[in-house]
Amino acid sequence: MGKNILIAHGGGPTAVINGSLQGAVEAARVSGKVDRIYAARFGAEGILAGDLIDLTEVSPTVIARLGHTPASAIGSCRRKLTDGDYPTVLQTLKKFDIGAFFYNGGNDSMDTCHKVSQLAEREGLDLRVIGIPKTMDNDLTHTDHCPGFGSAARYAALSASELALDASGLPIHVVVLELMGRNAGWVTAASALAARLTRCQVLTYLPELKVDEDRMLADIERAWAKGKGLLVTVSEGLRGPDGKPLADTGIVDGFGHVIPGGTAQHISDVIMRKLNIKSRAEKPGLLGRASIPYASPVDREEAYAAGRYAVNAALRGQSGSMVSIRADRTGAYSSSMELVPLAEVANAEKTFPLEWIQDGNRIADEFFDYALPLMGGDWPEYAFLR
Amino acid sequence: MGKNILIAHGGGPTAVINGSLQGAVEAARVSGKVDRIYAARFGAEGILAGDLIDLTEVSPTVIARLGHTPASAIGSCRRKLTDGDYPTVLQTLKKFDIGAFFYNGGNDSMDTCHKVSQLAEREGLDLRVIGIPKTMDNDLTHTDHCPGFGSAARYAALSASELALDASGLPIHVVVLELMGRNAGWVTAASALAARLTRCQVLTYLPELKVDEDRMLADIERAWAKGKGLLVTVSEGLRGPDGKPLADTGIVDGFGHVIPGGTAQHISDVIMRKLNIKSRAEKPGLLGRASIPYASPVDREEAYAAGRYAVNAALRGQSGSMVSIRADRTGAYSSSMELVPLAEVANAEKTFPLEWIQDGNRIADEFFDYALPLMGGDWPEYAFLR
Repeated sequence: MGKNILIAHGGGPTAVINGSLQGAVEAARVSGKVDRIYAARFGAEGILAGDLIDLTEVSPTVIARLGHTPASAIGSCRRKLTDGDYPTVLQTLKKFDIGAFFYNGGNDSMDTCHKVSQLAEREGLDLRVIGIPKTMDNDLTHTDHCPGFGSAARYAALSASELALDASGLPIHVVVLELMGRNAGWVTAASALAARLTRCQVLTYLPELKVDEDRMLADIERAWAKGKGLLVTVSEGLRGPDGKPLADTGIVDGFGHVIPGGTAQHISDVIMRKLNIKSRAEKPGLLGRASIPYASPVDREEAYAAGRYAVNAALRGQSGSMVSIRADRTGAYSSSMELVPLAEVANAEKTFPLEWIQDGNRIADEFFDYALPLMGGDWPEYAFLR
Repeated sequence: MGKNILIAHGGGPTAVINGSLQGAVEAARVSGKVDRIYAARFGAEGILAGDLIDLTEVSPTVIARLGHTPASAIGSCRRKLTDGDYPTVLQTLKKFDIGAFFYNGGNDSMDTCHKVSQLAEREGLDLRVIGIPKTMDNDLTHTDHCPGFGSAARYAALSASELALDASGLPIHVVVLELMGRNAGWVTAASALAARLTRCQVLTYLPELKVDEDRMLADIERAWAKGKGLLVTVSEGLRGPDGKPLADTGIVDGFGHVIPGGTAQHISDVIMRKLNIKSRAEKPGLLGRASIPYASPVDREEAYAAGRYAVNAALRGQSGSMVSIRADRTGAYSSSMELVPLAEVANAEKTFPLEWIQDGNRIADEFFDYALPLMGGDWPEYAFLR
């Protein structure tokens, strides 16, 4: 086995993806078994170009800063490797004498990870391959949840709470908040916590249910009529009965696809036009995956632990697996790491349970039983004097 | 003098407006000179309706929570009092035996405050009137800065930094961030701190300068070509050479005015259409004035101190004044409170110095010399490994 290790990021970052990098680097350092620690500069692009960052001599102080650095400190990309790319990947792995390869990403990255693992085996390369899960969308299977989700969910819950207080303290408009999630409603569901934290009215719409705009408007009109302000939280990927996005930018990209966007603004415009109620739309967008002050401490610890666990597992000789989080909610929440075969994870998707959506716009307690421990606790207690 | 006091909020809230309320309530309690402490429910609306909240018996624990409760805990409104309203205002003040009235707000509120003060004097009412400054826009004169600004500025700086890291760690699109400020660029200027905190490319556009879209696009294209990602921060109120907003919702309100909105999305769309560069727009909107985790500790302390100072000044017999912050930046930053005549504050506006805008999209060091102490320090040190 080569004496060096390589870590790469794939796809969109989270608030804690660098925490997994920190865990991996620190585990490699204390093991005494790793010669050089490499990171791919901008993910798959760096692997293909043989452009690696040598982290071996980076000071422990800088590595410790990874725990509160958002986005990818080593760079990521959206390039999905094709069959033609794999020989180049192997070339880089050989050139840098890589004995263990760690890919930190979501569904696509786990698929890549699996293929690299299979290829190395076929080629008789002594390479260990471990996937480290990462996605704010929480849609990976074979793990209780994904690092990155707890922080995005905490962001959604706290931002929605603060907006709900603003919307009810100065109830001159409906406020529509758009949150990330094209197909999965996990993060947007967390925004419904605002109803509990603030006593304000909150309606929540997830992409798993097709939206009947007339019914939505009727619900909004009824809630608004109570006169105490209203927050509507929506997933960016909301679709109508015909399965088409409620809104898009009207701009066509290089592949002929219409670029999505503007769901909250669309709903806000419809509220003004059809209900004649003043409305405004907010879209923090990428801030929902990049915010450090709103990050979940539990999520941060688990992301770190996942990176550590991956390196230690590879050094024990494990390969072809993804780190998975096993959660125990019987008493005080606790979690532990284990390995699951990449083959099983690679092409599956975990969707939000439809039975956790009530009346089309409320989120069931079962979701919060599941998600609250991951979101970090220490919830604010606000003063209500009105 | 009546034995009771009345506090009201006017206009849009900030992250720390409730801190001023907390300061006022706690000062009134420890003074031993106030019988009942009233707050107007939803600002001027509550005063006109005689609908007051009695805070006298509210527990100290709940009052202490005001320090981290965003928006207005007692409710605010946008109603501007007209001449015909003032007799009703006086009626409420008399009915509740109010000896001191505190109006916590921006320009409009200080104007109202001034009129109530003059009217009380004319009517021989023994009423003390003190304005407590509040506006995230920082456009009040006769004070070094306004409570609410430091927190909104910190939000802008940290959010922009986190987005800049996201935009440069996965440089697949230009990211355009829209920040609040229709006419004043103070808050948007603070977002330029991201260039210092992250080493990423940041272009910043304030509403004080009319935007030549072609020049803006040329600047964006040149910055993007460097290949390291790009964040563009813009004020919601950007205007073109003709003085008209760059974007609006296309929807006309009840007064025949087109409702503004969508500046960042407009710029993002133009970047895609004209430069053929992928782009996305983020608009945290009201979150910029409501976020507690991003609030400035200095701002929070000063907001509290301003509320306290207002009550103590009234109890000392002062009236017809606004609390003003005097800042000392000669050594470590410190500030103190004083009073300025409402007559001078009422109808003036503090604009962003044009000489602090360089090359149309960079912010001069002089701004940061002024603003950084207000934004609370303790800036994150990020890890850069790319």
